[in-house]
Amino acid sequence: MTATTNKLVIIGVGHVGSQVLTTAVAHQIASEIALIDIEEGRAIGEALDADHATPFDYNANINVHKGTYEDCADAKVIIMCAGPSIMPGENLDRLVLAGRNAETVKDVMSQIIKYTKDAVIIFITNPLDITTYYAANHFGYPKGKLFGTGTTLETARLKRIIADRYNVAPTGVQAFMLGEHGNSAFPAWSMVNIGGIPVTQLDQYFGIETPLDKGAIGKQVVQVAYDVLNGKGWTNTGIAMGAVRLAKAVMYDERFVGPVSVTFEGEYGITEKVSLSIPCVIGKNGVEKRLPLNLPEEEVNNLKNCAKTVRAVLDSINIE
Amino acid sequence: MTATTNKLVIIGVGHVGSQVLTTAVAHQIASEIALIDIEEGRAIGEALDADHATPFDYNANINVHKGTYEDCADAKVIIMCAGPSIMPGENLDRLVLAGRNAETVKDVMSQIIKYTKDAVIIFITNPLDITTYYAANHFGYPKGKLFGTGTTLETARLKRIIADRYNVAPTGVQAFMLGEHGNSAFPAWSMVNIGGIPVTQLDQYFGIETPLDKGAIGKQVVQVAYDVLNGKGWTNTGIAMGAVRLAKAVMYDERFVGPVSVTFEGEYGITEKVSLSIPCVIGKNGVEKRLPLNLPEEEVNNLKNCAKTVRAVLDSINIE
Amino acid sequence: MTATTNKLVIIGVGHVGSQVLTTAVAHQIASEIALIDIEEGRAIGEALDADHATPFDYNANINVHKGTYEDCADAKVIIMCAGPSIMPGENLDRLVLAGRNAETVKDVMSQIIKYTKDAVIIFITNPLDITTYYAANHFGYPKGKLFGTGTTLETARLKRIIADRYNVAPTGVQAFMLGEHGNSAFPAWSMVNIGGIPVTQLDQYFGIETPLDKGAIGKQVVQVAYDVLNGKGWTNTGIAMGAVRLAKAVMYDERFVGPVSVTFEGEYGITEKVSLSIPCVIGKNGVEKRLPLNLPEEEVNNLKNCAKTVRAVLDSINIE
Amino acid sequence: MTATTNKLVIIGVGHVGSQVLTTAVAHQIASEIALIDIEEGRAIGEALDADHATPFDYNANINVHKGTYEDCADAKVIIMCAGPSIMPGENLDRLVLAGRNAETVKDVMSQIIKYTKDAVIIFITNPLDITTYYAANHFGYPKGKLFGTGTTLETARLKRIIADRYNVAPTGVQAFMLGEHGNSAFPAWSMVNIGGIPVTQLDQYFGIETPLDKGAIGKQVVQVAYDVLNGKGWTNTGIAMGAVRLAKAVMYDERFVGPVSVTFEGEYGITEKVSLSIPCVIGKNGVEKRLPLNLPEEEVNNLKNCAKTVRAVLDSINIE
Repeated sequence: MTATTNKLVIIGVGHVGSQVLTTAVAHQIASEIALIDIEEGRAIGEALDADHATPFDYNANINVHKGTYEDCADAKVIIMCAGPSIMPGENLDRLVLAGRNAETVKDVMSQIIKYTKDAVIIFITNPLDITTYYAANHFGYPKGKLFGTGTTLETARLKRIIADRYNVAPTGVQAFMLGEHGNSAFPAWSMVNIGGIPVTQLDQYFGIETPLDKGAIGKQVVQVAYDVLNGKGWTNTGIAMGAVRLAKAVMYDERFVGPVSVTFEGEYGITEKVSLSIPCVIGKNGVEKRLPLNLPEEEVNNLKNCAKTVRAVLDSINIE
Repeated sequence: MTATTNKLVIIGVGHVGSQVLTTAVAHQIASEIALIDIEEGRAIGEALDADHATPFDYNANINVHKGTYEDCADAKVIIMCAGPSIMPGENLDRLVLAGRNAETVKDVMSQIIKYTKDAVIIFITNPLDITTYYAANHFGYPKGKLFGTGTTLETARLKRIIADRYNVAPTGVQAFMLGEHGNSAFPAWSMVNIGGIPVTQLDQYFGIETPLDKGAIGKQVVQVAYDVLNGKGWTNTGIAMGAVRLAKAVMYDERFVGPVSVTFEGEYGITEKVSLSIPCVIGKNGVEKRLPLNLPEEEVNNLKNCAKTVRAVLDSINIE
Repeated sequence: MTATTNKLVIIGVGHVGSQVLTTAVAHQIASEIALIDIEEGRAIGEALDADHATPFDYNANINVHKGTYEDCADAKVIIMCAGPSIMPGENLDRLVLAGRNAETVKDVMSQIIKYTKDAVIIFITNPLDITTYYAANHFGYPKGKLFGTGTTLETARLKRIIADRYNVAPTGVQAFMLGEHGNSAFPAWSMVNIGGIPVTQLDQYFGIETPLDKGAIGKQVVQVAYDVLNGKGWTNTGIAMGAVRLAKAVMYDERFVGPVSVTFEGEYGITEKVSLSIPCVIGKNGVEKRLPLNLPEEEVNNLKNCAKTVRAVLDSINIE
Repeated sequence: MTATTNKLVIIGVGHVGSQVLTTAVAHQIASEIALIDIEEGRAIGEALDADHATPFDYNANINVHKGTYEDCADAKVIIMCAGPSIMPGENLDRLVLAGRNAETVKDVMSQIIKYTKDAVIIFITNPLDITTYYAANHFGYPKGKLFGTGTTLETARLKRIIADRYNVAPTGVQAFMLGEHGNSAFPAWSMVNIGGIPVTQLDQYFGIETPLDKGAIGKQVVQVAYDVLNGKGWTNTGIAMGAVRLAKAVMYDERFVGPVSVTFEGEYGITEKVSLSIPCVIGKNGVEKRLPLNLPEEEVNNLKNCAKTVRAVLDSINIE
C-alpha cells in the first residue's frame, strides 16, 4: 500500500490552528490532516466538524483526524500553532509571551524529533521570532526545514493598506514587511511599487492629495493587529491563510518568494544570534534560498534594531 | 458604473458567521461581502482579518467590509447567523433557544425588508425550523426566497458516517436526513445507497460483519453535534460549508438538490403550520421546487412527529 | 532532497492529452506533470504553452515539462491518451480502432514497466475496453493499478441529459452508465433518481407531460458523442475532466465511487475475459474495490451483450 | 425571475475560444457561458462537450450553451477570439493577419452594439493591437469597456523565463512586457525584480555565472510564441488563461494590475493613433485606470517604435 504523501500535521487547534485547518481543507493542500492538541477533546471536535464539511461537492475527501506525534513520521508539513495567545486587554506586545511559550516549544519539538527530521515545520506560535529561533537552533532540526511565518502577515497587511489607498488589487502591489513579526516590523519602502510605479510617484499617478505618510502606514500595519484583536478577540484568518500559502509552496515545491523568519547568518552585519524575516524562496525543502536584498541605511538600522530587540528577549529567557 | 452583482451579506459574525465568511472567501462565491453585527467592533475585526487573507495569490480580491442593513439593498444572498448559540453544558436541545432568538429574528427581518425583498435569505440561526418559519411567514418576504439550512448539515454528517463505515468518499453516498434540524431529524433510509447498492446489501458487499444498526446511526447523526460542541465549544465548520454551498447554488443558479427547511403546505398530510426539511431544488430564486419524495409509513410518522414538536415550540412562543 | 510526490505523466498530448493537461493544471492535481508524445515537438509545445498559464495567480507553480518514459519511475499517476482517434466521417464505432491501437498499447506498456509497477495507470485510449483489457492483462501490471475511464464519460452525459430534462444540477442526479465505453453502453435505470425520487415518478414530480423514453435517452447518451465529434471535430473536454477526476481520487486517496473499466472476474455469470465498466471505489491504489450491484435481468443481459461484443473484438485481434 | 448576472459570451470557439471556455469553466468565472461561432455546429459541439464536464464534482453547474448575438444583451463580459489564426509555416508575423481580420471585427462589433454597450469586451483576435484599436474606436463603444489582452501573455512568458533562470515561482517575479502584442514587444527591464532584488543583481544573488543577456531574453519571449506554434500547431493555453484572468478581474471587480492593450492618448509623446499595452487597472468597468509608468529613454523609444509599426499596419488597411 502506497503511503499518503501529502500529509499535514497541525499542532494546536485553538483559534489559529482551527482556522489553519479550515483554510487547508478549502485550498486542498493536503490529502490527510492530523490534529494534535493538549486538549484531546478539542482535536476530536475540530476533526469531526471539518469532517462534516468534506461531504459537500467542491471539497476533496480529505482525511481529517485527531492525531498523535507519531503522525509526524510521514508528514510532509507540520504547522505549529500551539501555545497561549495574547488576549485583548493584556499588555499587547507579542514578546511578553516568550516565557510562556518557550516551554511549549520545548515540549513540542522534543516530541516531533522522535519521529521525523524530514517534514518541513512552519511556526506560527508567538512571539514568532523567539519561538522560531529556539526551535530551529536547539533541537538539531535540519537547517531550512524549520522556519516561521514571520512578516508574511504584516506583508499582506501592508499590501492591503497600500492597495486600499490607491484602489487596486493587493496582488498588484509589490511590498514587503521585514524584521520582527511584531511591533518593530517595518516596510522595505525602497521596493514598494504598483505596476512598476515607485511609491514616491503613486500619489501623483492616482491623483491623491493627502501625501503618503510612510511612518503612519508602517505604524498602521502594526496597529491593525490590535484592531483585529480588539474587534474580534483574536486574530486568525489572515495568519491562517499565510501559513497555508507557505505550506502549499512546500507541498507543490512552488519556490514561492516571500519574507519568512529564518536564523540570521551575519546578513547586514548583524552579529546577534536571532531569527528575523527577510525574503526567501520556499520549496519542498522549506527555505531553499535567502534573498537579503540591499536596503538603504535606514532600513538596515531598522533591521539591526529588530535584532537587538529579539536577542534581548532571548537572553531574558536564557536561550542561546 | 455597473453595480456589483455578487454581493453577500452575513448577519451575525460570531463563531458561525465568521466561519461562513472564511468559507465564502475561500470558495469565492461573492465579489463583495458585507458583515453586520450588533457588536460593530466584531464586524470591523472580522472584516479586517479577512482583508488580510485576500492579498495572497489563490484568493480573489473580494471586498469584505463592515456593513449596515442598507447593504441588503443590492445583496444577492443574505446569510443569517445572528442570535446566541447553545453553549456546552446547557440543556442541549436547540428548541430551548426559541424564546431567545425570536426577538432577534424580528429585529433583523424588520430591518432587511426596509431595503430588499429580492435577496435570497438563508437562515442558520437556531432553533432553525422555528426561526425560519417565523421569518418566512410573518414579514411578507416572498415565498421561496427565504429558507433554512435545515438538515443540510445532518445530511453531511449522515453521509460521512456511512462513508466512514464502508470506507468510500461521502460524495459516493446517496443519503438524506429529513425533518427537524435538531434532535428529531431522521435518515430517509429508503433512499440510502452507495453506487446504487441499497443500504440493506452494503454490509455484504463491503464484508462488514457487525450489522448496520439504523437506529444507532440515526442517533449518532444527532449526537455528533454534541460531540463537536463539547469537544471544541461550538459547531461552525460543517454548517458554514453547508450554508456556503447553498449560497453558491443561488449565486450560480445551480439548481442544487438537497434538503432545506421550508414552510410545509400540506405535504404528507401534515396540517401543522411549520417549516421542516425535505429535498428541494435551490437556484437563483431560492427554493425553486420542493421534492416531497414518497416515504415509507415509518418515515412519514417521523416527519409528523417533527411537525408536532416544532409546532409546539412555535405555539409556546406565540408564533402563528 | 525530497522527491516530488504528486507527479503525473500524460502519454499522448493530442486533443485529449492536451485537454487532460489543461484540466490537471486548473484543478491542481499534481505538482509536476511530464508529457510524453511520439512527436517530441508536440510535447515541447504543449509544455511551453501550459508553462505560460502558470504565472497567473490562482494557478499553482506546477512544473510542466516534456518527459520520457523514465519519468514514470516516480509518477503517482499515468494517464494514457496515446493512439489515433476516430475522425468525423469515419465508421463511427470505437471498436474499429482496435487493430490500430493495440500496437500503441504494446509499445507504451513495454516502456512503462521498465520503470514502474507502482504508478496508477488510467487509460483513455480507444477502443477503451479493448486497450484497457490488453494493458491490464498482458504486461504483468499489478491488478487494480491499471483501469480505464470506461463509462465515466457516458455517466456524466446521462446525468446531464436527465438533469436538463428536469432542470436540476447534474450532481443531484444519481445515475450510472455501465458496460462498454461505446455503442453498447447502457443506463442502469433501476438506480436512477433525483433527490431520492425514482425515475418512474420524475415526470409527475416535475410536471413533464411528454413521457420519459428510456430507450431514447440510452441512445442519446451514445449519440451525443457523435454530436460532439461532428460539431467540433473531436471530443476532449468531458473525457479530460473525467480522467482528471479519477486521477485526483488517486492523488488524494479519495475512495471516489464511479464506474470504470476493469477486467471481469466472473461477475454476473460473465465468463468472457473482458474489461467493462461497473461502479468501483477509486483510491491511492487505483481500483480499491468493485461494486457489482444487483441488476434486473434486462440490464444483466445488456452487460452480457457488451461482454460478447468486446470479446469478439479482442479475439479478432488475437488478444487472449 | 432575477437575471443571471455573471454571463460570459465567447465569440469564436476555435483553438483559442475553446480553451477560453475550458479555462473559464475550471476557474468558475461565470454562471452562464454562451458560445457564438460562424460554424454553428462547432459552437454546439463545444457547448455539449463542456456540458459533459460539469456533472463532475469540483465543477459548478455552469450553463454552457450555443448562443447568438442576442446573448450579448445581458452579458457582463464578452471575449472575442473570432478570426483566422496564423498557421505554422506561414509568414510568422501577426500583423499579416490584419487584412483578414478587420472584416471579422467589423462583422462582430456591428452585431454586438445592436445589443449592448454595457458589457466589457476583451479582445484576443490577432493582430491584437490592430483589431483592438479598430474595435475600440470605430463602433462607438464606451471608452475603457473594450480592451485587448495585449502583452498579458508576453508578460507571463517573460516571468516564466526569468523564474526558470533563477528557479523561483513566476508570481515572485515582477516583470512587464510592454508595447505591441507581437514581434516588437519589449520588457520594461527597469522594473524587473525578484523579491525586491533588481535585475542587475540577480545573477550574483542566485550564483549564476552566465551573465543575464537582456536582449536575448527579450527575443526569447517573442520567439517562444513560435516554439509553441511550431510544436503543437497553435497557441491557446497561455492566452486563454490570460484572458480568463482579466475576465475574472472584471467579474469580481478586482482592480487587477497588468498590461493590456488600450488606445493611446498622447502618453510618452506618442502622437500616432494606436492601441498598445501599458499597465492598467482592470475592474468591473474594464480599464479603470492607466498607469503609464516612467520609462528610460531606450524603452520609450521601443514604445515609439511599436506605435509606428502598428500605425503603419492600420494605415495599410485604411483604418483611421
